[in-house]
Amino acid sequence: MDGAFEVLARDPASGARAGRLHTAHGVVETPAFMPVGTQASVKTLSSEELEELGASMILGNTYHLYLRPGAGRVAELGGLHRFMAWSGSILTDSGGFQVLSLTALRRVDEEGVTFRSHLDGSTHRLTPEGVVHLQELLGSDVAMVLDECPPYPSPPEEVEASLRRTERWAEIALASHRRDDQLLFGIVQGGMEAGVRRRAARALGKLEFDGYGIGGLSIGEPKETMYRMLEASVPELPPARPRYLMGVGSPDALVEGVARGIDLFDSVLPTRVARHGTVLTRRGPVTVRNARYASDERPLDPSCDCRVCRRYSRAYVRHLLNAGEILGLRLCSYHNLHVLLRLMEEVRAAIRQGTFAEVRRAAAALFPRRQE
Amino acid sequence: MDGAFEVLARDPASGARAGRLHTAHGVVETPAFMPVGTQASVKTLSSEELEELGASMILGNTYHLYLRPGAGRVAELGGLHRFMAWSGSILTDSGGFQVLSLTALRRVDEEGVTFRSHLDGSTHRLTPEGVVHLQELLGSDVAMVLDECPPYPSPPEEVEASLRRTERWAEIALASHRRDDQLLFGIVQGGMEAGVRRRAARALGKLEFDGYGIGGLSIGEPKETMYRMLEASVPELPPARPRYLMGVGSPDALVEGVARGIDLFDSVLPTRVARHGTVLTRRGPVTVRNARYASDERPLDPSCDCRVCRRYSRAYVRHLLNAGEILGLRLCSYHNLHVLLRLMEEVRAAIRQGTFAEVRRAAAALFPRRQE
Ligand SMILES: [Zn+2]
Ligand SMILES: [Zn+2]
Repeated sequence: MDGAFEVLARDPASGARAGRLHTAHGVVETPAFMPVGTQASVKTLSSEELEELGASMILGNTYHLYLRPGAGRVAELGGLHRFMAWSGSILTDSGGFQVLSLTALRRVDEEGVTFRSHLDGSTHRLTPEGVVHLQELLGSDVAMVLDECPPYPSPPEEVEASLRRTERWAEIALASHRRDDQLLFGIVQGGMEAGVRRRAARALGKLEFDGYGIGGLSIGEPKETMYRMLEASVPELPPARPRYLMGVGSPDALVEGVARGIDLFDSVLPTRVARHGTVLTRRGPVTVRNARYASDERPLDPSCDCRVCRRYSRAYVRHLLNAGEILGLRLCSYHNLHVLLRLMEEVRAAIRQGTFAEVRRAAAALFPRRQE
Repeated sequence: MDGAFEVLARDPASGARAGRLHTAHGVVETPAFMPVGTQASVKTLSSEELEELGASMILGNTYHLYLRPGAGRVAELGGLHRFMAWSGSILTDSGGFQVLSLTALRRVDEEGVTFRSHLDGSTHRLTPEGVVHLQELLGSDVAMVLDECPPYPSPPEEVEASLRRTERWAEIALASHRRDDQLLFGIVQGGMEAGVRRRAARALGKLEFDGYGIGGLSIGEPKETMYRMLEASVPELPPARPRYLMGVGSPDALVEGVARGIDLFDSVLPTRVARHGTVLTRRGPVTVRNARYASDERPLDPSCDCRVCRRYSRAYVRHLLNAGEILGLRLCSYHNLHVLLRLMEEVRAAIRQGTFAEVRRAAAALFPRRQE
């Protein structure tokens, strides 16, 4: 789709920009954080709650949905939006990362990857064109190409070989994509060498994708390394197209990513830390599961105005987590998503108002190690 | 509290009656079904959702809350209502049933029961007066006496010995109760002999309780036996006081209980069957987890207007349950509670309008064995 993305404002002091991504299901104001609904569900939350939280685009995972309930099944039921009763936008990750991290006995060759399902051990094969086709069946608004993400750390020659495959696969994906109501994003790989990342971004940027994912980061490397890789990649990508930093969701990294020109983010962090009883607050993370909160009548974050913080105390949420009650996970997940979605709202407003530098300074203090 | 209960209408053809129970937290229209929040949470659901569902009184469990987070802790935090942010009425079960069913190495003597916690094996003791005190700390609107529920089946002499203890404990509980913003209910036991039940109800009915629980039923006996026990007990209880059939929640048994003069019910059935992927419908239970529903675009119950049925398909709920997504449990639990709470609303209206017999006939068909 042409003109799917427009840049509305730029921060003069950084690479930050505010824009709008137009999809078949609406407008996504960027920079945006996308909650992750791997198996067609953002863990513990309903589609109503995602609407209420103001999420405009959520993620689905092609690998997971291919295995269960099956892409054909989803297509037969009217596509992923209708299946999960979500009328906003959906981006589907290709599942390449999950194939490489979850499955046993996988074998990558030049044409694709063969693997055993992590569910039942059955054998499957994903190819660049097959993954495009699966996402066309799912009917997501944004599809991602199949890529290969080398583990961290990897020897340079392996990163190179993997990158060449990812680049060839990108061309195959682009050539096989048919749906014109679906955007297709390429993915920049290239390991942790700035020179390789720069070259990879330049090459991918020459292909006519609707947007560009930056993958293979936030996989164990220091944050400073990730930021250097962004600084190497982003300037080589077409400025008129959206950029998506895959798998990043800590508040400080979101803002630092925005400062380096990123428009989209996704991460399981808000729901994953909730499972460990941790909530994000304006004064850093609070592990509300700890015994010290057993009599704490304050809300999860005293400065938060979300539905959970307006009603429930830390003491109650701590009890729920401690007693294994699912409501505890729900309340923490809801609040954490609220924090990240509000942060991105603030970031967008700040970019338009020329005050992004202040938000950036404040965010750096948002995720300190010390607990409140 | 005097005048806490009023009978507004009686069905001429059965023992059914519609009434109002006034508690410190509002009015409970009866007959009423109370969702069970054992550990200060109705499994998977928030207090907002219980309000939305129209629940007027929910259950808490003294045994569970005594162990975790502790009754003193709840009192310090302002009582159970404030702790769980629920402004409606709360009835607390005494926990006698849980002590006898969940704990190891329990020893019942004439003054109480000593047991090991099912959580950490620590030793505890509950007495009739102690259980009243715990519920005064919890601050529930209705407290239940400590009773002993003999297993089914039990030899007559054991039922007798147990009943004598339960009766002595009831007197101790009544004498030790202090809070005048809290109602105290006695509990009729007596095993599965109509004569014993009749005698037990008559004796308990002479004590000035604010209401009367009927316990020790729905523990494995045939439903017809349970109905006979109700027919033996209820006529012996003071007609101006509410009667509460403990642990019963299948649609047919609710209506048959109402027909025998019961005003209050509680059961984990709606949330427990949800965990097994079963939903209640106007055409009987549907185990939506089954593969046959994988492409079923209908709502859980096509005749239901709850928030879940207005938005989600069986195919989606089936996928969520199959994939282990918590949202599946949530959606089934919400719908099931809606079905029971609407059924009771219908029952109340029917009693007032003189059409209870029709609702009773319809309900008998509501829980057939055959699946839709
Ligand atoms: Zn909050
Ligand atoms: Zn429903």
